[in-house]
Amino acid sequence: MRTLGEIARFVDGELRGDPSVQVTRVTHPGLVESTEDLALVLSPNAVSFLHTGRIQNAVIPAEVGDLQVPIANQIIVKRPRLVLALLMQLFERPAFVEPGIHPSAVVDQSARLGSDVRIGPQCWVGPGSVLGDGTRLVAHVSIGAEVRVGQNCLLHAGVRVGDRCRLGNRVIVQPNAVIGGDGFAFVTPERGSVESVRETGEVQAFNTDIVRINSIGNVAIEDDVEIGANACIDRGTLGETRIGKGTKLDNLVQVGHNVTVGENCLIVAQVGLGGSSRVGDRAVVGGQAGLPDHLSVGSDAVVHAQAGITNHVPERSVVIGAPAQPKRAFLEREVHLKRLPGMYKTIKALQQRLERLEARLAGDDEHLKAGEPG
Amino acid sequence: MRTLGEIARFVDGELRGDPSVQVTRVTHPGLVESTEDLALVLSPNAVSFLHTGRIQNAVIPAEVGDLQVPIANQIIVKRPRLVLALLMQLFERPAFVEPGIHPSAVVDQSARLGSDVRIGPQCWVGPGSVLGDGTRLVAHVSIGAEVRVGQNCLLHAGVRVGDRCRLGNRVIVQPNAVIGGDGFAFVTPERGSVESVRETGEVQAFNTDIVRINSIGNVAIEDDVEIGANACIDRGTLGETRIGKGTKLDNLVQVGHNVTVGENCLIVAQVGLGGSSRVGDRAVVGGQAGLPDHLSVGSDAVVHAQAGITNHVPERSVVIGAPAQPKRAFLEREVHLKRLPGMYKTIKALQQRLERLEARLAGDDEHLKAGEPG
Amino acid sequence: MRTLGEIARFVDGELRGDPSVQVTRVTHPGLVESTEDLALVLSPNAVSFLHTGRIQNAVIPAEVGDLQVPIANQIIVKRPRLVLALLMQLFERPAFVEPGIHPSAVVDQSARLGSDVRIGPQCWVGPGSVLGDGTRLVAHVSIGAEVRVGQNCLLHAGVRVGDRCRLGNRVIVQPNAVIGGDGFAFVTPERGSVESVRETGEVQAFNTDIVRINSIGNVAIEDDVEIGANACIDRGTLGETRIGKGTKLDNLVQVGHNVTVGENCLIVAQVGLGGSSRVGDRAVVGGQAGLPDHLSVGSDAVVHAQAGITNHVPERSVVIGAPAQPKRAFLEREVHLKRLPGMYKTIKALQQRLERLEARLAGDDEHLKAGEPG
Repeated sequence: MRTLGEIARFVDGELRGDPSVQVTRVTHPGLVESTEDLALVLSPNAVSFLHTGRIQNAVIPAEVGDLQVPIANQIIVKRPRLVLALLMQLFERPAFVEPGIHPSAVVDQSARLGSDVRIGPQCWVGPGSVLGDGTRLVAHVSIGAEVRVGQNCLLHAGVRVGDRCRLGNRVIVQPNAVIGGDGFAFVTPERGSVESVRETGEVQAFNTDIVRINSIGNVAIEDDVEIGANACIDRGTLGETRIGKGTKLDNLVQVGHNVTVGENCLIVAQVGLGGSSRVGDRAVVGGQAGLPDHLSVGSDAVVHAQAGITNHVPERSVVIGAPAQPKRAFLEREVHLKRLPGMYKTIKALQQRLERLEARLAGDDEHLKAGEPG
Repeated sequence: MRTLGEIARFVDGELRGDPSVQVTRVTHPGLVESTEDLALVLSPNAVSFLHTGRIQNAVIPAEVGDLQVPIANQIIVKRPRLVLALLMQLFERPAFVEPGIHPSAVVDQSARLGSDVRIGPQCWVGPGSVLGDGTRLVAHVSIGAEVRVGQNCLLHAGVRVGDRCRLGNRVIVQPNAVIGGDGFAFVTPERGSVESVRETGEVQAFNTDIVRINSIGNVAIEDDVEIGANACIDRGTLGETRIGKGTKLDNLVQVGHNVTVGENCLIVAQVGLGGSSRVGDRAVVGGQAGLPDHLSVGSDAVVHAQAGITNHVPERSVVIGAPAQPKRAFLEREVHLKRLPGMYKTIKALQQRLERLEARLAGDDEHLKAGEPG
Repeated sequence: MRTLGEIARFVDGELRGDPSVQVTRVTHPGLVESTEDLALVLSPNAVSFLHTGRIQNAVIPAEVGDLQVPIANQIIVKRPRLVLALLMQLFERPAFVEPGIHPSAVVDQSARLGSDVRIGPQCWVGPGSVLGDGTRLVAHVSIGAEVRVGQNCLLHAGVRVGDRCRLGNRVIVQPNAVIGGDGFAFVTPERGSVESVRETGEVQAFNTDIVRINSIGNVAIEDDVEIGANACIDRGTLGETRIGKGTKLDNLVQVGHNVTVGENCLIVAQVGLGGSSRVGDRAVVGGQAGLPDHLSVGSDAVVHAQAGITNHVPERSVVIGAPAQPKRAFLEREVHLKRLPGMYKTIKALQQRLERLEARLAGDDEHLKAGEPG
């Protein structure tokens, strides 16, 4: 329960109405049920809801606020999506984890737990592992041996953290994510098929024998990282796989061994980052895009969804398509592809016109010949 | 053990043979081992197996049945794939879950369980949660707080259901699927890189700060839905993410926050549905296709595998490719792309012929000039 | 702790230096910290590190070794990536699992365990299941009923193996992988939308009813297979889904029901293999590629990342793109696509030149007409 006055201050909005009114819930304008609901208008598209008469209290973007909607209590704001984030802090409903260690959990006696650590049902914390103050494990979490998890982390149900991996502070890991699986690293004792393709363009060697390369490295996750449900981050072969401070990985993202992702990146669902690839700082990689082994995405680059990267992506560039190209080149190609049918017809027509001309001139020749003075 | 007579009635087939013969197993014609096996012929391709002499009993599609194969007992059927479904009901081998609550399971004392609920080893059911009659949890399932699961659901090993999510009746969830992870929702306090690209085509702003938008909504799964292994369905930010009655999601499918999927859809493996996207009723989305945030697929649309949707997909349309286009346009483009080498050669040839003509006419001019009366 | 002499023999390298020197760790040349570190140089790119003076012991590829770098003890090798694999065997750090059966684990009394089996915290082994000698389950593993796991397998945390599935010897399964989920198999009682599209190109039928096809088959994993984190292998409908000897599947790979993958294949992260598809022996399928239902990839074929296969891929072929084509055709198409803007301009120019010629000749005609003798 919060007062509108309190909320307006927290989101840095202008209150038009009664600051003492109390609200219990933030909701979409179309889902308002009571006078204790606060409707949040994120875009001008939702304006129609503001005239239904059911809404008493609303957060309204500045451009809509000027429209004089009939809402008793209005909080006028500038960047509504940021306001959404702030309201979701005020009204957060954190994942349920009871204080203390659930009796069904298994915590190795050599593990060290900070103060206020909460460990839910059926979790396991392996030998030599450390959980920092305020960290919470929801349920069925596996923490292997010699793992270090920082302070105020939240590991949801079914998260796996392999031996020797390290997580910073305030890291959030969604359910069933895997940190520290082994890298997909193999070698053929003799030259293999992929090598022969790289050298000659053809398959001239055969992977009759495959030798595993064990991963003895680990994963290092820096502060304020978030990792999505069922995402996978493989450990390094010798060294580490590193996810930089503040970076967010969405669900089902694949991060290969020895990858380095910089700070404050946004890696959308189902992206694949191949072994030893690198992503700079503040890069955005759209859903289902793929970055092959050993390639890189520069800082502040924006990679569109489903892009198939085949070269290093420079800093601040915008790439799209498979194979990925600069967005401008991609759009130009699309224009030309749309012109293809017209080009085809024009060529046919030109051909005919040319044939007529040629025939005509051949006729002239005949004519000339015929008319040549004897 | 079933008699052929019983089976023929159940699958609405025509029995040619002995109705009292008993069979214990349905199998592929190539795998028949005994006279108690019933061979199921799904397509005319399998006809060769019918002449090996090893098969005593077979279900045969009508078009094959007329071929007079030497099988003692035949059940002639119309739609063999439907018959497969019916036979798999008769011969089902349901997942092993012992009756009752396994002693290793943790069920909060405030949880309410219907009659005949089965809870396997190491499961957890959180406070205030409700499981309807006949619902089964196989093993290692986490049910958070205040979850409602309907009747006769089957949740396989390692399934995670987050706080406050709701499942209807007869919902099947495959192993390690995650229902109710947090949405991937963030905002930069100032204009960010993606916004600047949208406005100007270039990266002119930098994501130096990223603020999380907590998800306080939930997920609602309607009756008869099936969710694949390692699939992820994120909870809504404020409201709900909803999967409509009878819809089937395959393995590793990603459903973002606030998505609505209609009834009876088929969403094939590894599809990504971005935040706030919408899918109508009875739509089919092929494997690895991607639907970006806020876009929609209309009812009865068919989206081909790996399609990269970039616009709303109209009802009943068929789209393919990345960027996704109507199938007709896509095929036309393919035709033109195949013509490209020919077009290139034709243009070169036209250019040469034109040059010859021009030279010829220039020669005429010279000739004319030369021959002009002085 | 190993001596350089021992290491040189094991990796079949030529030691230049002191065979009695002991090393405790293998590491990247840039991360060397002590004289007990052995630097492993994988490529000539790392040569710069060899001149920093910090490195005492190094494994060096033959082509670099000839450069006379100032390293006291050198092991000169031929195929450095193979040497990496061998060194990772010598210095392996196997996943932590205590000997014996953890008291929190649930092992059905009808299960049979070989000698030296290790079962970690919170695991479950169902009735009638068998684990071979030396097999290890790390934590939170679910083994259903009547499962057979061979000898010396390693199943990481959260792995799910469904009823009746079979694993050979030395199989490694990464965390949260699912073996034996149900196939995604459904049928509409009447003709459905996808069938109508296949027959007519348009949606002329509607999936108003969907019937589930239960999976009663299983999964068979042969010896020396590795399965990645969060990968899914569905059970067969009637028969089995089979992964051949020595094949490696990366993280988040989807294998549909009734699929057969041959021996020694490498299937990279996020690949999708549709139901009843087939992959031959020694094939390599790049990340995020998709193989639709019922299609096949031949032995020794190399499928590039993100390829969208739409036809059978012949043995030893190299395919790329979506739709996937032979690499040569794909590269040719790329060349032609790059020529498109030039072709467009040339056509425009040809058109103008042709118009000029036509006008000129029309002028001639006029001229001729005008100049015709009256």
